Amino acid sequence: MPIELVCLDADDTLWHNETFFRLTFERFATLLAPFAEETALEQRLAAIERRNLAVYGYGVKGFTLSMLETAHEIAGERLPAGVTAEILAAGREMMRHPVDLLEGVRETLETLSGRARLVLVTKGDLFHQESKLAASGLGDFFSGVEIVSEKTPATYARVFARHGALPEASLMAGNSMRSDVLPALAAGGWAALVPYALTWDHESAAPPSAHPRYRELGRLGELPRWIERIG
Amino acid sequence: MPIELVCLDADDTLWHNETFFRLTFERFATLLAPFAEETALEQRLAAIERRNLAVYGYGVKGFTLSMLETAHEIAGERLPAGVTAEILAAGREMMRHPVDLLEGVRETLETLSGRARLVLVTKGDLFHQESKLAASGLGDFFSGVEIVSEKTPATYARVFARHGALPEASLMAGNSMRSDVLPALAAGGWAALVPYALTWDHESAAPPSAHPRYRELGRLGELPRWIERIG
Repeated sequence: MPIELVCLDADDTLWHNETFFRLTFERFATLLAPFAEETALEQRLAAIERRNLAVYGYGVKGFTLSMLETAHEIAGERLPAGVTAEILAAGREMMRHPVDLLEGVRETLETLSGRARLVLVTKGDLFHQESKLAASGLGDFFSGVEIVSEKTPATYARVFARHGALPEASLMAGNSMRSDVLPALAAGGWAALVPYALTWDHESAAPPSAHPRYRELGRLGELPRWIERIG
Repeated sequence: MPIELVCLDADDTLWHNETFFRLTFERFATLLAPFAEETALEQRLAAIERRNLAVYGYGVKGFTLSMLETAHEIAGERLPAGVTAEILAAGREMMRHPVDLLEGVRETLETLSGRARLVLVTKGDLFHQESKLAASGLGDFFSGVEIVSEKTPATYARVFARHGALPEASLMAGNSMRSDVLPALAAGGWAALVPYALTWDHESAAPPSAHPRYRELGRLGELPRWIERIG
């Protein structure tokens, strides 16, 4: 059965994201250098982010609040007020940062949108993701946008159904094995992993090596050819 | 034509929300009392919130970040680190606060869901709104949930269409003239204003006094009777 519906992750699949988190973390580490060594700081921040995930969900605002909390846990009353102001500014800059598309993405979406309906499926702040999509100039390629709080098999089943495609005619492509590939396969769809150079800690999982509906691609630009072979 | 689709706002329509913002603001004012008088503080915070709206959107995380920014603008280097930690804690408490339903809401939704499809239409953090809906125990009454970044006429037109109802068979009920009533009327639907005791500054607008598809209700419990008369 040919693929009718192509779902695409956004952050680190269409545009750079983790890179900005890394750059912001480096700035954070410099600010906190008088109080903590970088590796210890990173571990502490990761622990606080994990603890806060159930309260804040995903996205830049929650990350900013977790950096502030980490700074206060580590430095306590010794923390200069200026550092708090700098962390707030770093968070706002991440929110406002221009969208930086990955190579070849626009051309690939142009090709894909001629052959299938495209739907963006992404986690994160609703407001920030909509802003980034608007700024990316890619909005017109998509017939739907689904900003979701979790990516489970039920999420993909709902998205496939809502956009009128059977699971076996639906494909999800993204950079996360755990959020993009495994739940989409579990929902009966096809899935392509397009790894990003940096992959976020919480998102790693083992590859479904020999799954008939799974493929790892070197870049998003290889997707149209795979889809052609499926149909 | 009878009403087939009833859209409902969430914050301050189904459950208390502004009350918690007020309580958090009182706590913030107490913390900042050594640096600013309450009225001046409130004006400064409102100005910073408005400035940040385009960056953060709506919701508790953005409100927390704006409180932190206000505190630093007002107190500068004199701000004790403990105050920042207290503001962060106040924000987390708002995120985790149990959902406190307005009186009669459960019974009203029970009645309404027997006569029309119900869809929740709300702004705010995707993650937080989904958490509140889950905690409210009201989820089963709704056949759809639309968490949106803005409530414009186009938003309502899309929601009515997506849930398979003509505008003249669709109704929106909520506590905001500007976000719930006016754009829903502009999209061709019916609209009920159910005022909440406290109404947020940014949301006020004049009533469409004699509009044939508009009604102000004293409480949500009066909605089923109005809908009966429409049909």
